Formats: sequence, C-alpha cells, structure tokens
Amino acid sequence: MHAITINEPGGPEALVWAEVADPVPGEGEVLVEVVAGAVNRADIMQRQGFYDPPPGASPYPGLECSGRIARLGTGVSGWSVGDEVCALLSGGGYAEKVVVPAGQLLPVPEGIDLRQAAALPEVVCTVWSNVFMVSHLRPGETLLAHGGSSGIGTMAIQLAKAVGARVAVTAGSKEKLERCAELGADILINYREQDFVAEVREATGGAGVDVILDNMGAKYLDRNLQALAVNGRLAVIGLQGGRKAELDIGTMLAKRVAVTATSLRARPLEEKTAIVAAVREHVWPLLAEGHVRPVVDRELPMSEAAAAHRVVEESGHIGKVLLVLE
Amino acid sequence: MHAITINEPGGPEALVWAEVADPVPGEGEVLVEVVAGAVNRADIMQRQGFYDPPPGASPYPGLECSGRIARLGTGVSGWSVGDEVCALLSGGGYAEKVVVPAGQLLPVPEGIDLRQAAALPEVVCTVWSNVFMVSHLRPGETLLAHGGSSGIGTMAIQLAKAVGARVAVTAGSKEKLERCAELGADILINYREQDFVAEVREATGGAGVDVILDNMGAKYLDRNLQALAVNGRLAVIGLQGGRKAELDIGTMLAKRVAVTATSLRARPLEEKTAIVAAVREHVWPLLAEGHVRPVVDRELPMSEAAAAHRVVEESGHIGKVLLVLE
Repeated sequence: MHAITINEPGGPEALVWAEVADPVPGEGEVLVEVVAGAVNRADIMQRQGFYDPPPGASPYPGLECSGRIARLGTGVSGWSVGDEVCALLSGGGYAEKVVVPAGQLLPVPEGIDLRQAAALPEVVCTVWSNVFMVSHLRPGETLLAHGGSSGIGTMAIQLAKAVGARVAVTAGSKEKLERCAELGADILINYREQDFVAEVREATGGAGVDVILDNMGAKYLDRNLQALAVNGRLAVIGLQGGRKAELDIGTMLAKRVAVTATSLRARPLEEKTAIVAAVREHVWPLLAEGHVRPVVDRELPMSEAAAAHRVVEESGHIGKVLLVLE
Repeated sequence: MHAITINEPGGPEALVWAEVADPVPGEGEVLVEVVAGAVNRADIMQRQGFYDPPPGASPYPGLECSGRIARLGTGVSGWSVGDEVCALLSGGGYAEKVVVPAGQLLPVPEGIDLRQAAALPEVVCTVWSNVFMVSHLRPGETLLAHGGSSGIGTMAIQLAKAVGARVAVTAGSKEKLERCAELGADILINYREQDFVAEVREATGGAGVDVILDNMGAKYLDRNLQALAVNGRLAVIGLQGGRKAELDIGTMLAKRVAVTATSLRARPLEEKTAIVAAVREHVWPLLAEGHVRPVVDRELPMSEAAAAHRVVEESGHIGKVLLVLE
C-alpha cells in the first residue's frame, strides 16, 4: 500500500507518499481500506518530531479516518467485511489501509457522506470526553470554546447547543466568528480585538462561564480561571500557548474550580473504547437526526498531505481539512 | 447565652467568652443547645482576621458541633425537640446555642458519644466530598493524605481503608505516623526526613498515587503532580503552603490529571445539604458498625478556647481538639 511517511522531521515537505508494507490486523482488530483521513494539529507536531507515536502505534501520521472494513482479525464480532466505518486511530490514518482495534470503530452515521465521516472521530471523541464526560456540561450552563472555528470548536458549539447549553467562542476573524454564529454560538469574541474575560463576564451578568474547552494551555491559564464561574471546570486539551504558568490556587479554591488536562491519543484501548461507546450512544443519534454535522473546510488528495498541513498551519481554515483517496 | 467572641483579630487571647444574644431559628432551621464544638484551622484564620464568616453566617467561630435540638423553626420536618444531633455549621459553634439549617443536621451515629460526635461533621463532609464525590477514589486505588494525623487526615485514612483503598500519609513525627498506622495507613512518610514523591513512587512500583488530599497548596503543587499516577486527581482543601505556584500543564496532560480546589464553608446551602445527605447514606453506617471512629486528641472547656487554639497552632495534637460545655 501507500502511506504518508516521515523520514526526517521537518516542514510540510517532510511528508512523503511512499510504498510501504500492508498492516495486518491482530486479535480484536480489523483492517480498514481508507477512503479519507483528516488533519489534526497533533499530526503537525508528529511531522516536526515533537510528538512520537505511542508504543505499538503505526509510525505514519493520522488520528482518524473513514473507509470500509477489508478484513477481520480473530475475535472480532459485530462488524463485517464491507462495513462503512469511521475510526479513532492511534496513528496511521494517512495511508491506504490501517489496522484499527474494533473498540475504536464507529459506523458511518445515517445521512453522512462516507468521506465526510473522516472528520468526526477525533473531534467528537475529544469534545464529548472533555466537555461532557469529564466536565459535565449541563443544559442551561455556558461553555467557552477557544478556537471556535477549528474542527474541535465547530463540534463543541454544535454539541453544546444540542444539549441546551449556551456557547461563547473565541476566534481570530469576523469571518470565523460568523461561521461560529451560524453553527449556534451565542457569544462571539474576537481574541485579537477583545478581552475574553471581560466579554464573558458581561455576557453572563458577571457570573462567568461554567466550562472552558482550551487549546492554549499556559498562555490562557490565569485568564481562564478569571473567566470561570463558581463551580467552573477548565478542560485543557492543547498547549499551543505553552505548558508552564503560574496557578492561583486561591482563586481556584474561592470558586471551587476543577482544572483537567487530557489527550486522547495516549489513552489505553479500554478508555478509548469507553469514549467511542459513549459517543455512539449520545452523539451518533444527533448526527443521524441532522442536529450536528461535520464541518469540512476542504478536501485534498492524501498524496498532497503537505499542502493540507500548510493550510492548517496558516490557520485560515474553518473546521476540518480532509485527505481523500477516492 | 455565652459565646466565644472576637472583638479584635489577633492571637489566641482574642477569643473572649462573653454574654451575647440568643440566636433565633428561621424557616427551615433549628436551634441546637450545644454540648461540644471542635476546632478547625479555619477558626484560627477567622480569629486572625483572615477569614471572615460568609454573608448571613454567625459572627462567632465554630464550623461544627454536637448537641440537642431545643427548638424547631417553621417548615422543619424529620427532626424533633430533644434529638441528639451533630451539625455542619457556617459559623457559631463556639457557643451555648447555635442555629442550623435542617439540611446540615446529622443524627449522632449509633455507638458514638454525644460529645465525640462534634468531631465528625467537618472532617467527614470534607473528606467524603473531596476524596469520594469529587475525586472518586475507588477500591484498590491509592490515596495520599497529607497531614495524616490531623482531624482530616485521620478520617481520610479510615474512610479510604473502609472502601478498600490503599493509604499513604505524610506527617511530621514518628509518633504521629504510628497513630496513622494504627488507623490503617499503609505507607508512612515523615515529611521532615523523606521525599514524599520518591517514597510513594517506590511504594507503588513507580506508578504513583491515584488521589491526593492536600492542605498545602502552592508549596506542594509541583511535587503532588509528580507523585500522581496516570489519571490521578489532586484535591486541594487548604493553602497552608501558599496560594500561587507554577503549574506544569504538560505534566498534567501527559498523565491526564485533574486538579480541584474546594472549601466547604463557602458552599451554598443546597450543596452542603447534598454532601450531608451523602455522608449520612455512606459514612454513618460505617460509624455505626465501628469501622470508622472519631479521633479526638483532647477535650477542653469551651470557655478556654484560647488554650485549644494554642494546642492546634503548635501542631502537636493528633485528630480533633474539642470544646465542651457539659
């Protein structure tokens, strides 16, 4: 098969479409013929040499895909050859074929195009596990999603609105904020021109927000604590603004705040399986009913992954950038 | 009635036993004739002028007591005059009478002396809400309780052991650690002589502990993160080591750590009521069956509250210091 390989970490040109050995499914795994993959920021870090695949994972980048099951390993039940699926991966999605533990497979939701389904697993699992399973966003509460126009952000807006929460977002342009509004965001904050702490306080009558989904880490830590309401929860899922910052535990204690930090890729199979099962139960019906849609910025041929990485690195996109094979 | 009053914040001598007006129970409240109160560190901070009572609370110190119900306000059901109770208070426990919202009352557990019951509400509610309701300590997991010989620590050891967890403690002397061992602690760490990070790593085969109950705040933040296992939870309930410290969010993310900070006193009535109800359901049977006992260092007359504060400030005690009226 072909896959995007990384011989030397570096810029987008480090991504090379090359002939490699086919992977073979082991016990409890299936082989998927990939139709589309999607770009995540973690892929860029892996390309740059800052984020090695976890032990046992494919050496090729790609944390999600859609496609068709081509072969079942031993001990797999509930799935058949030919099934149209999408999958959460520990790596290897930038390839013609990929091996997936059965617990990380999801059916393509009713009414969703097979290629577009590649935009779902990583963002849906990340948002659902953080905003709902860890931070327990409830109807009537307010979510602040930083990077509202990203793949994660566009899914966070839709899922939070679907459960009856209010949504604030930050983004860097009027166009991006308009797209967030179309998806249902209630409070639009241009982080280049506005102070998000002041804006969320004003929009919540001084109370602050109940849950924050944050990809910035250190840079936003103190302001995130300021923006939280009493009993607020801060879920950090990225460190784009650095990893170390001063924490005011007194502020946390006065507000009874919880700060969590997670990544999906490093979780063991049983945790991923539990998240995928929860997503299938709670989010798949919302997709089938049309309340939630994948947001895709563009599709590029997988062999042009370098161009796709440039798009994501320039941050002009809205939603996901797909890498397609068909 | 008489109460311990604070005319001017200061040392223990600021506590003055004086004649004051009787409190009157409002709707949903009862009047309790106090038999015993207990000293908490928050009382010392209040005496020093660093911790004002929350709005609506009694101006007198005292966050817990035991006694007998003397009068019911309107709208109280399930309690009768003469009932022997203990109670979680927002203040006012250093007095002959105190008004308590009915939701913060607990019956004196079977087999527990009425005076000794004053040692229970604050520590049981603090440990249960943090270690179990927030941090979800599970059977087979390991808890690290800092200050293992304190009122909180001695209760944390017993409750964690009662649910089948393993317990590590830190304390400052051999005598204190021996008492922790008698209560069931498995891993004993003298923080004056040993590095708790190295000790818990060694005792857990390098894995670290699952939950930490911490009263130190800033001073221990980084070491607590180092001592936590993957999926670990740090529950901060005190700031004896300061409020601001550098947080390494990268370490949190790599281990998927949750950091929470809470205090009991500032919580609204409905949250206290929920905690008290959970404690009555889950902890009261353990007390009645003798699996968990209040740990009382000594009893002093309430009018000698100054002497009791000196005992707690010198940190030579083990468990709770009671202030008794009968």
